[in-house]
Amino acid sequence: MARCALGIDVGGTTTKAARVNAVGEIDGWRRIPTPSRADAVAAACAAIATELMTDEVAAVGIGSAGLVEDGVHIWGPHVAGPAPIVEEVTAATGRPATADNDANAAAFAELRLGAARGCSNFVMVMLGTGIGGGIIIEGSIYRGRGFAGELGHLVVDPNGPPCECGRKGCWERLVSGSVLDSEARRIAGADPAGIVAGCAGGEDASGLHLMEAAQEGDPVSLGVWSTVGRWLGRGMADLVAVLDPEMFVVGGAPARAGALLLDPAQEALAELMHGAGIRAVPPIVISRYGENAAVIGAALQALEKFDD
Amino acid sequence: MARCALGIDVGGTTTKAARVNAVGEIDGWRRIPTPSRADAVAAACAAIATELMTDEVAAVGIGSAGLVEDGVHIWGPHVAGPAPIVEEVTAATGRPATADNDANAAAFAELRLGAARGCSNFVMVMLGTGIGGGIIIEGSIYRGRGFAGELGHLVVDPNGPPCECGRKGCWERLVSGSVLDSEARRIAGADPAGIVAGCAGGEDASGLHLMEAAQEGDPVSLGVWSTVGRWLGRGMADLVAVLDPEMFVVGGAPARAGALLLDPAQEALAELMHGAGIRAVPPIVISRYGENAAVIGAALQALEKFDD
Repeated sequence: MARCALGIDVGGTTTKAARVNAVGEIDGWRRIPTPSRADAVAAACAAIATELMTDEVAAVGIGSAGLVEDGVHIWGPHVAGPAPIVEEVTAATGRPATADNDANAAAFAELRLGAARGCSNFVMVMLGTGIGGGIIIEGSIYRGRGFAGELGHLVVDPNGPPCECGRKGCWERLVSGSVLDSEARRIAGADPAGIVAGCAGGEDASGLHLMEAAQEGDPVSLGVWSTVGRWLGRGMADLVAVLDPEMFVVGGAPARAGALLLDPAQEALAELMHGAGIRAVPPIVISRYGENAAVIGAALQALEKFDD
Repeated sequence: MARCALGIDVGGTTTKAARVNAVGEIDGWRRIPTPSRADAVAAACAAIATELMTDEVAAVGIGSAGLVEDGVHIWGPHVAGPAPIVEEVTAATGRPATADNDANAAAFAELRLGAARGCSNFVMVMLGTGIGGGIIIEGSIYRGRGFAGELGHLVVDPNGPPCECGRKGCWERLVSGSVLDSEARRIAGADPAGIVAGCAGGEDASGLHLMEAAQEGDPVSLGVWSTVGRWLGRGMADLVAVLDPEMFVVGGAPARAGALLLDPAQEALAELMHGAGIRAVPPIVISRYGENAAVIGAALQALEKFDD
């Protein structure tokens, strides 16, 4: 592989890493469980980076689920900070490193080489345990005071279901991988002879099974995708009022459902956004890099920053 | 007056204009009713500009309530477009001109010389008939595809009161000058011998009378300011999730109520924003230039663009 950077994605449950070159080609995947203690996280990043090091690796980029500032994972929903990831990775590898929020890194991959190539202003919506957001403004990641794009905690229904953050009706309580998983478990539990339970085949039902059941035409599953998709579009309508973006890019496992999720979202967005008559409804597209977006984006950030 | 620009603010009911120099000093106010027909609006701007023209006027800046693109008022809630304001003003005055959304112009005044001087990222919230928004990102007005900052149509309660736009629970249906006016009329009507009706003294009760009554300690009026202020803070909590700004600047007539409005807003923001424990709660401050902000900001934009 020619000159490349290492991309590391520190997720809530798994940390994964690979070498990535300037055109987004990937080589040498590694996956380890993300430790829960902050000091162990920095050490794990250093270890996985060391394993993947070759002469071609010019720099290391890290995307982490949480608030990242000056190379330190300050805080996250899964890993409490601070974890000095850049410092430890550089000490272990001798390479310069950079770190960012994982959804920001994913947005960067889509901006440079993916679904949003050529866009100036767009919003990345990563569906996982919650919602991670990346906001691109005039071709750059927008960070505010460091914490912009916390889209999962946009309140879309002040009387909605309670959120772990202590409030009600946060967007990620209505749209996320977790929401789909819990709907799947509820449906399979209520009807153990039904299609969703059948797709799960004795395992815990998940959003994946809800997708399979919907693809087989199960009306209950189709209803869930429609409801979740409409809430996705409703939150996006709020983002259009604020940011007026050119497009939305949706990533994470639920995006694999494609039209099941995006058609109702696009429909609700067209219906609910202000000014649909005088401005185009932004398209909602699927991430090109899916669950690899943060690894690729983090590596591209490192290459742009350090590889002359 | 030294080198200056003309600022024109095309509002929903009144168009006002003045000469403004580089330090924000104002001279020669003119006010006329805003015509309702688009072609008449461009002509009215040209006429008011001609009246105020002096040798010192280097350029003309126009702020207009609506979508403004390439010098044309394309669309607005009060004045349907298109109105070629820049073209007609330049033809009438021989001066270069620039045009922008009125809340953007107001935000620009606060950025350059007002409450947000030195800020990189902040949000201007103009309370009038509805809510006008101006978003400053990295020291510049952020426009998206031309229509960013339509904050009045952020949906803060999907089961809230109906909005003229056809949806429910838009922010401006819960917080605006109109909301305060209609609450005042309702209260005065329900209790013609009460404090609010007394403050109105036989006229139609308005938000101003609600302010006076609250300052006299009227618990009903205090309750309205508290409710409206809390909705103001609730919408701002959503904006913190998206934009993570350094501050909010509130302008328009209701901002005159000061702490009556801003204290409950600040309280609700601290309570409802995500991550209040790990990032500072942005301060909510009153606009320095109040109802003159759009005139001053439009003039400053013209001076920066055209006066070398």
